[in-house]
Amino acid sequence: MIATAARARLDSLAKPPGSLGRLERLAIRLAETQGRIDPVTTPRRLIVFAGDHGVVAEGVGLWPDSVTAAMMGLMLQGRAGSAALSRAMGADMMLVDAGSKASGLAGAIYRDWRVARGSANLAQGPAMTSLEFEAALACGARAAVEAAQDGIRVLALGEMGIGNTTPAACLAALLTGASVEAVVGTGAGATAETLARKHAVIAEAVARARDLTDLRAAIASIAGFEIVAIAGCIAESARRGITVVLDGFIVGTGALIAQALDPEALRTAIAAHRSAEPGHALVLERLGLEPFLEWELRLGEGTGALLLLPLLDAAAALLRDVATLAEVTGG
Amino acid sequence: MIATAARARLDSLAKPPGSLGRLERLAIRLAETQGRIDPVTTPRRLIVFAGDHGVVAEGVGLWPDSVTAAMMGLMLQGRAGSAALSRAMGADMMLVDAGSKASGLAGAIYRDWRVARGSANLAQGPAMTSLEFEAALACGARAAVEAAQDGIRVLALGEMGIGNTTPAACLAALLTGASVEAVVGTGAGATAETLARKHAVIAEAVARARDLTDLRAAIASIAGFEIVAIAGCIAESARRGITVVLDGFIVGTGALIAQALDPEALRTAIAAHRSAEPGHALVLERLGLEPFLEWELRLGEGTGALLLLPLLDAAAALLRDVATLAEVTGG
Repeated sequence: MIATAARARLDSLAKPPGSLGRLERLAIRLAETQGRIDPVTTPRRLIVFAGDHGVVAEGVGLWPDSVTAAMMGLMLQGRAGSAALSRAMGADMMLVDAGSKASGLAGAIYRDWRVARGSANLAQGPAMTSLEFEAALACGARAAVEAAQDGIRVLALGEMGIGNTTPAACLAALLTGASVEAVVGTGAGATAETLARKHAVIAEAVARARDLTDLRAAIASIAGFEIVAIAGCIAESARRGITVVLDGFIVGTGALIAQALDPEALRTAIAAHRSAEPGHALVLERLGLEPFLEWELRLGEGTGALLLLPLLDAAAALLRDVATLAEVTGG
Repeated sequence: MIATAARARLDSLAKPPGSLGRLERLAIRLAETQGRIDPVTTPRRLIVFAGDHGVVAEGVGLWPDSVTAAMMGLMLQGRAGSAALSRAMGADMMLVDAGSKASGLAGAIYRDWRVARGSANLAQGPAMTSLEFEAALACGARAAVEAAQDGIRVLALGEMGIGNTTPAACLAALLTGASVEAVVGTGAGATAETLARKHAVIAEAVARARDLTDLRAAIASIAGFEIVAIAGCIAESARRGITVVLDGFIVGTGALIAQALDPEALRTAIAAHRSAEPGHALVLERLGLEPFLEWELRLGEGTGALLLLPLLDAAAALLRDVATLAEVTGG
């Protein structure tokens, strides 16, 4: 309904129909997420969900998991990429700790809502228990509730967690049905050796997860706390009518979880971009979301979601401020 | 030099090298245009150059040239697409009349610097005289001088002129050496019949222009006032170190003129996007500029250039505000 009304509004404007291409599709999607043809794009917030991953012990990446805490500290200082871009794009920022191993972090934007200090090693057994899975969903929902209380209309979602491309690739394979080969990338850095290990770990974990008959248990066995929290945040944002702008591959797998638990959970979601991570296109296809930027982004931290925010402003301005042809011609 | 320094700065930041993909290339290009690794993106301005075209009498498009004046009026009311998006993207706006047939327009942002009231019909003879060509260049330069006096650091350049895809296609063919087939699109609207006429007119005009030995005379024979003014504005902006963000196909052909007269004129130019107009890719290749958005835009009025402005803010923030890895590790 709203999509049809938004399309009609755009086609009535004093410009050749369709002449703003992808911006018009973004305007329609934005209108859909808010159920109104005059959507609002401020105030807005970046939420970075953080977590650590037991699977790092398997040597699946280049960096030690202490880097998670270091990057979280940099965010709290306002000097990480996410922090710099959130200021530039007019969003405030929250760092929600869903399950990192960090200690000593503090700051007005820090929320220590940890389910545990790092997930278990998914190569050796389930990454988390059922209780932990539900707690991680609740952690994400809580961040959406806080956003709603603060009057936030648009959330940009990002993540920080060394090693989290491994659970993300597991989730992408499990929830899209794609082969492991199709979804394993280098993450934020890998050698041939770490990549081979990562591949083996993922293949085995996904095979075990596919044997589980309970969907929630299967997801919990291969997920990470920040990824599950993202799913909870997306679902709660949908219930509250807050537009959620998804960053890249890892946030996309959080959206896959939300979709698997309830297809209606994607009602307010917009995919900001298609990243350089090879599995992301498959994830987006499964989510049924069109990505708006193809900028070869693979930093994470919500940086790609932030870049779309001013383009949402443009989309909203198009719907709101441009004269109709009828007004111009007096018809 | 500056590109190397900007690349080194980006590679020193606390993030995986290259992980912000196209945003990093945009940051490097922005730094190059200003000759500094801490480029500035405000204050900024959209300039829409307007003009009418005698060739409209040949029936090359769907719309009468009175639409040029109507759209200019809508810009002055702040209700055109360009006006709405310039507000949303934090740019002020100027409408520079390089040669429209409008009458009765007024407003604080209107500059009536007309060379003439519409160009001559390029199907019947030269579109403008040599004197008019030089005057149109000066008109554009004057807009850049005013911007410099106002402290503007970034200009977004756009155009409005019913029929101007015809001179633009002529210029693209002449200045890239491409075939007429490769550069003729539908513009803002065309039927099969108008498209066939447009094609014939362009082929003949380009053939005549190619016979002229004097480059300026050849360009003048097939150009339009707003397009030549854009060339003048680009060249003067380069001299003054103002970053110029180019909109689509038509602005691109203005840049081709500037380049043909002086290759250094593109020193401060950034291509915002690759449009839906088929010849645009060829124009960008000839200009040697990478487009940053592919959003199927074909409205004109500088709308595509405007969409890139907040992404320039992000690029500048990346260079300016993100910590280096050495700062994080204490190295």
